[in-house]
Amino acid sequence: MKFSKILFSAAAAALLASPGLAASEKDADSNLLKEATRNFQPLPKRMENANNPLTDLKIELGKMLYFDPRLSKSGSISCNSCHGISSYGVDNLPTSIGHGWTIGGRNAPTVMNAALHKTQFWDGRAADVEAQAKGPILNPKEMAMPADAAAVERIASIPAYVDLFKKVFPGSKSPVSYDNIAFAIAAYERTLVTPSRFDAYLGGDRKALTQDEKKGLRLFMDNGCAGCHNGVAIGGGEFQVFGIMKPYQELTKSKKIDLGRYDLTKKEEDKNSFKVPSLRNIANTYPYFHDGSVWSLSDAVKIMLETQTSQKLESGEIALITAFLGSLTGEIPKKALELPVLPPSTEKTSRPDAN
Amino acid sequence: MKFSKILFSAAAAALLASPGLAASEKDADSNLLKEATRNFQPLPKRMENANNPLTDLKIELGKMLYFDPRLSKSGSISCNSCHGISSYGVDNLPTSIGHGWTIGGRNAPTVMNAALHKTQFWDGRAADVEAQAKGPILNPKEMAMPADAAAVERIASIPAYVDLFKKVFPGSKSPVSYDNIAFAIAAYERTLVTPSRFDAYLGGDRKALTQDEKKGLRLFMDNGCAGCHNGVAIGGGEFQVFGIMKPYQELTKSKKIDLGRYDLTKKEEDKNSFKVPSLRNIANTYPYFHDGSVWSLSDAVKIMLETQTSQKLESGEIALITAFLGSLTGEIPKKALELPVLPPSTEKTSRPDAN
Repeated sequence: MKFSKILFSAAAAALLASPGLAASEKDADSNLLKEATRNFQPLPKRMENANNPLTDLKIELGKMLYFDPRLSKSGSISCNSCHGISSYGVDNLPTSIGHGWTIGGRNAPTVMNAALHKTQFWDGRAADVEAQAKGPILNPKEMAMPADAAAVERIASIPAYVDLFKKVFPGSKSPVSYDNIAFAIAAYERTLVTPSRFDAYLGGDRKALTQDEKKGLRLFMDNGCAGCHNGVAIGGGEFQVFGIMKPYQELTKSKKIDLGRYDLTKKEEDKNSFKVPSLRNIANTYPYFHDGSVWSLSDAVKIMLETQTSQKLESGEIALITAFLGSLTGEIPKKALELPVLPPSTEKTSRPDAN
Repeated sequence: MKFSKILFSAAAAALLASPGLAASEKDADSNLLKEATRNFQPLPKRMENANNPLTDLKIELGKMLYFDPRLSKSGSISCNSCHGISSYGVDNLPTSIGHGWTIGGRNAPTVMNAALHKTQFWDGRAADVEAQAKGPILNPKEMAMPADAAAVERIASIPAYVDLFKKVFPGSKSPVSYDNIAFAIAAYERTLVTPSRFDAYLGGDRKALTQDEKKGLRLFMDNGCAGCHNGVAIGGGEFQVFGIMKPYQELTKSKKIDLGRYDLTKKEEDKNSFKVPSLRNIANTYPYFHDGSVWSLSDAVKIMLETQTSQKLESGEIALITAFLGSLTGEIPKKALELPVLPPSTEKTSRPDAN
């Protein structure tokens, strides 16, 4: 065998073996991926709902409504105001600013991938994004429309909208209805899927994560994080008491104690219980927790380990988990980022009211 | 000559003559276009400024800043909040809602084609869009940043922005400066050119306007409107007293008397003087006048005729002028409508402050 051939074979073998990894490391790498695919699933292309079939025109109409501040009493707040598409579906505020500069009670959760969650809102009071979309429009602290009829009336006063609703909901007796407004908005939201490097990894591309991110993934699974933050949304699938091992406010320094789901159900076991948030795009959706009380992702990781599992990891390990979480930052679909042009109001359109 | 050839020639002749128009009508049509091109000019592709050369990257950076609410103290108000790109560069409110739900003093003028105006703001207190962009960020009733240094510091805490500023302003000693923030925002604004059917008409396409729109154009020029609303922006070129023939508030029912440019110059002749607004996209940029006191475009036309020229036209004529104004609604550039993805804050980024 010639020297050059030997060299070539050695190079090829190294390439096949993932260069730099010994046999045991290779096994560990393979096991990591296997274990990851047991805990997590890659994102679908779109988040379908049999009760709200997606059509291009419905998505387009929904996008217009999503960006239209006329769905608020003041004419100045749209869905996008608190769930900014440019900023991964959040406003990056502890809690949002609503009608009359009212400071909201809970942190605005991201709309990205939200349709994959088992329920909506921090307390799960809406079953799906279709039901969720109806809430903020009427919430006096948010968009403050006095009634669903007021929202419908305003939209129905705009001929371009009426035409679109007729086309999108051809079977409807009254196409411009509050239900259909929510169906359309939710249809747009169902396109907000953000595939990340971690999805490529789950799909078998082991080079999609760095070595540090893989170490972080290992720690994430070994330390119980994936017990709740799992599945396709890496969270969003269940409720959990925040502060199982230690009252959360001791670490988050929250100014107000929020009893979470208890306020909805009045069941003792729901005290301090919240929906487990999705960790997708978590590096961009600060500040953290239901009250946005913590700004740093590594602090949030540390707090979660302590309040939920009574563990204290070394700062190097926290940094590795944080690095792994960074791999969950995905791509916002190009189409979702294309702003609609809104049709003008008419003389029949109710005037914005800032009071 | 064969019959088919005769037919062909007749068809060609009819085509050339604009079918349906008699010879005198044809002359009138030709004169209308000639007169129009003396009063108005079609839009350029971009609105250049030798002091702020446009580059693709500067425009992209400017767009990010334009949509970034972190340029406001509360972290909730961006340029786009009051100058919505989706709604032809305005918020369609009488006057905007700013920091602390403060209701502004004057109607937010459209950012579309604004760089063509001779000066900026209703009172012309800024020379160009570069100077204008620095105002609202620091205005306590608007974005309420306490100082330009606070805005610079916040942006400079975000590495992705710092990289971009270095690339966009390679000669700058401190690339992230308040001046450069304004230069970048203004660069984006200089792409906001909205060519309309009227531009096609001015370019020689006589079929670009309907017969009613042409009649409206005739009335617009014959009744003195083009005396002030002229040039490439169809306005924006001078200051005029609002209410030359009659106090404007008698017709607009304005609750507050705004002395306009007088408050800036303290010159008697500037009392009630405002920049003549551009009429491009006017059908979509309601409500009208410096205080947004009038919602209907035809009412605004009627009021202008009466306050500025002492004329009362028949309602049919008002409708024709209004129809002509509708032909000024243009196309928002596709690229300008593509939302940027904003880079995340860091632990060094100053926190949003709603107080």
